[in-house]
Amino acid sequence: MKLNCDMGESFGHWQLGMDDAVMPHIDMANIACGFHASDPLIMQQTVALAKQYDVAVGAHPGYPDLVGFGRRHMQCTTDEIQALILYQIGALAAFCQQQDISLSYVKPHGALYNDMMQDEAILVAILKGIAAFSANLPLMLMAQADNNHNESLAAQFEVPLLFEAFADRRYTDSGALQDRRQAGAVFTQQSQVMNQAIQIAEQGFVTSNTGKLIQLNADTLCVHGDNAQSIAAIAQIKSAITDKKG
Amino acid sequence: MKLNCDMGESFGHWQLGMDDAVMPHIDMANIACGFHASDPLIMQQTVALAKQYDVAVGAHPGYPDLVGFGRRHMQCTTDEIQALILYQIGALAAFCQQQDISLSYVKPHGALYNDMMQDEAILVAILKGIAAFSANLPLMLMAQADNNHNESLAAQFEVPLLFEAFADRRYTDSGALQDRRQAGAVFTQQSQVMNQAIQIAEQGFVTSNTGKLIQLNADTLCVHGDNAQSIAAIAQIKSAITDKKG
Amino acid sequence: MKLNCDMGESFGHWQLGMDDAVMPHIDMANIACGFHASDPLIMQQTVALAKQYDVAVGAHPGYPDLVGFGRRHMQCTTDEIQALILYQIGALAAFCQQQDISLSYVKPHGALYNDMMQDEAILVAILKGIAAFSANLPLMLMAQADNNHNESLAAQFEVPLLFEAFADRRYTDSGALQDRRQAGAVFTQQSQVMNQAIQIAEQGFVTSNTGKLIQLNADTLCVHGDNAQSIAAIAQIKSAITDKKG
Amino acid sequence: MKLNCDMGESFGHWQLGMDDAVMPHIDMANIACGFHASDPLIMQQTVALAKQYDVAVGAHPGYPDLVGFGRRHMQCTTDEIQALILYQIGALAAFCQQQDISLSYVKPHGALYNDMMQDEAILVAILKGIAAFSANLPLMLMAQADNNHNESLAAQFEVPLLFEAFADRRYTDSGALQDRRQAGAVFTQQSQVMNQAIQIAEQGFVTSNTGKLIQLNADTLCVHGDNAQSIAAIAQIKSAITDKKG
Repeated sequence: MKLNCDMGESFGHWQLGMDDAVMPHIDMANIACGFHASDPLIMQQTVALAKQYDVAVGAHPGYPDLVGFGRRHMQCTTDEIQALILYQIGALAAFCQQQDISLSYVKPHGALYNDMMQDEAILVAILKGIAAFSANLPLMLMAQADNNHNESLAAQFEVPLLFEAFADRRYTDSGALQDRRQAGAVFTQQSQVMNQAIQIAEQGFVTSNTGKLIQLNADTLCVHGDNAQSIAAIAQIKSAITDKKG
Repeated sequence: MKLNCDMGESFGHWQLGMDDAVMPHIDMANIACGFHASDPLIMQQTVALAKQYDVAVGAHPGYPDLVGFGRRHMQCTTDEIQALILYQIGALAAFCQQQDISLSYVKPHGALYNDMMQDEAILVAILKGIAAFSANLPLMLMAQADNNHNESLAAQFEVPLLFEAFADRRYTDSGALQDRRQAGAVFTQQSQVMNQAIQIAEQGFVTSNTGKLIQLNADTLCVHGDNAQSIAAIAQIKSAITDKKG
Repeated sequence: MKLNCDMGESFGHWQLGMDDAVMPHIDMANIACGFHASDPLIMQQTVALAKQYDVAVGAHPGYPDLVGFGRRHMQCTTDEIQALILYQIGALAAFCQQQDISLSYVKPHGALYNDMMQDEAILVAILKGIAAFSANLPLMLMAQADNNHNESLAAQFEVPLLFEAFADRRYTDSGALQDRRQAGAVFTQQSQVMNQAIQIAEQGFVTSNTGKLIQLNADTLCVHGDNAQSIAAIAQIKSAITDKKG
Repeated sequence: MKLNCDMGESFGHWQLGMDDAVMPHIDMANIACGFHASDPLIMQQTVALAKQYDVAVGAHPGYPDLVGFGRRHMQCTTDEIQALILYQIGALAAFCQQQDISLSYVKPHGALYNDMMQDEAILVAILKGIAAFSANLPLMLMAQADNNHNESLAAQFEVPLLFEAFADRRYTDSGALQDRRQAGAVFTQQSQVMNQAIQIAEQGFVTSNTGKLIQLNADTLCVHGDNAQSIAAIAQIKSAITDKKG
């Protein structure tokens, strides 16, 4: 069970995140590509930092919306989405070539990620963009109770899938995330986060908001590195998962 | 003697240039990469158009200045320039991968091109950016009376050089272009353009503004495809050069 | 019955529209404010051109989406919309102050216009933005079979309304525009356009796609100045409306 | 002697500065206008915050360079500069109108400020932009040993001037700031800053890097609110100046 985290989300003079502190604790870095955050110099530095800690580099493409941080849905055509995926993957891959490392996967960001999970035409556009870049480059998306449909869709484009789960979010019976605006949807106690992380990593299950056990086959847990507290949580999750495995 | 032309300079809803009409007549397409012009969808279409006519694709990176079309000098650091070169090359290369063709060369755009010719630190930053992307990817720059210095500089980074000349501009004795603001600096008669094109292609010389013969070893002539008249001129130059060679 | 037209939609080096040819024929210029099109210099020139022909200046604010020309829905909050309306109105008003003319009205652009007509919360945000700028600055929006609801909503913010109709679009029985993708939704024959223009201007009615007469109390007709043909059409409409009135 | 400080320099999701903590201590807020920093919502909030503490609002326009934070010289024409000044003043003034307060002055930002101090054509373009917006709106610029030339230039456009000085920077004999890259150019000890603040406020002099007393007639001191330490310094300067006056 790998830990993935959004990285390289600064922009020009504006700092965001604590990349230097987070990178040592994670396995996969989702690196912003300049459309919703980052710029060429920050991308270069972030790829170099990932290499330093032997962290796998993933492209983290988003909608072209800096002021909205890629979190606002934009009504792009599927042709536009395919092209902006390809553009951003290529831009990040250039820094991987510079550092003599491989680009390991692609994980869409923010509203584009949400749209991908809800609109199959957008998922297909993203799969096409990735497949156009290179064979066998995986797409990371959300693990659900049933991954079969997305698996077979991705197989048509020969794109491998990586499934991620969330240790800090309450799931519904269908294996979706509970709406953030509902009470209890986001875990506030670290013990809850730890329990769910271990449950996912060890058993491949989560307990839903109605108390049901939901199967969740995940390859990776998404973690956040915004502040000192969340970085401590990452280290704790990392350690718990490793202990259980050992 | 190849003909190169700036292509793919539209942006979103805004059209610029007559790419469909120009592409059949040129050998090398300098394709904008989204910083001073173009967007992912236009880049995809322009690379596909180049492939259709078997035209070599070059990355045409510029300063991040859409409203100024990359024509305004910006005081970037050399680190910033190296990184923005790498970013834009990578983005365009992704569309080449999609179309199963190679990226053939890099030619900086506008103010970045001018700065490169006048400031060695900027030339070095560009060479580093290109070398970091891949070995043996050539940089296109301006042919001068003496190319030796730039040749040896590029050799340090193992970047091959392509030299371009201008058929429609008056040269000075030093092999530089005469200032646009001076009378006669830009040829207005097609016969002048044709004569200089043939002189460069056949003899490797231009006649300077003082009447001296200046050596100019060029690999390619830069042409412009803005309107019907300039496209007719391209066809005429193409034909004249080919006839002379045959 | 006034004619309004989108103007000043160029951006930096990219030209769009034939403003010099259109301006003499219209009464109201909807001038882009830099978020979906235009830049400060183009705004200054467009306001000056409007003044030259004694054309009323309207702010034409849009979503912050240059590459999409403001035509893509963006999921902005109502706070964001109120603030971006205010920002763009203020920017355009500065050029009106420079030219010693008044800003006469506000007409949202593209996707923002569509969202305003379909989502009352967005309409309210726009009304708030306008009211915050100055008292008695009108909002232009689409005339419908029943304008009462929008009238009373706007009255709460003391914002006068201007209603516009379209001479070149087929209406449905509810007074909405027929979906562009349906056959016959956009008139292709100038005689159709002329008939509907006269019907609206003289009788305050349109004939819907089912043949019913629909009341449409409009203050202004929206016209387009993209090419020579559409400019000829504007002149013809102008003349027809004036003749009928006389 | 007023204290002025750059405010509202966040952008979208990215926070910068500690505006809430700084605003109570300053007299004049230089508020970014969206070209080098800020966005409509942040401008609205910052103007409201200034109003809350009865702080004078100044427009702080910059070059259109978000990624470079307006700190990179851009070779704009004087027409472009006049227009971008007017645009940004207008945008900020709209939020002042919303809050029923006046826009009190204009202070260019970063590279535009530096260019204004070194290139009279740029200063004139800025004066024209300000004068075009409204009569009697002051421009803030750097106090020098001799302000007469700038005074008479501004008088031609009927633009009042406000002169600012720096408590934390070493001056040269000509009344310019010593180059940041030279040792001692930026004061690192708070006692140095305090001494110079008091010297400027009380005596209208600074001691140059060669030990000479240089006359510096300043209306306002520029302070910085980046972190807790600098905010403490602001409070200390404020208190010292007020004590001396009392």
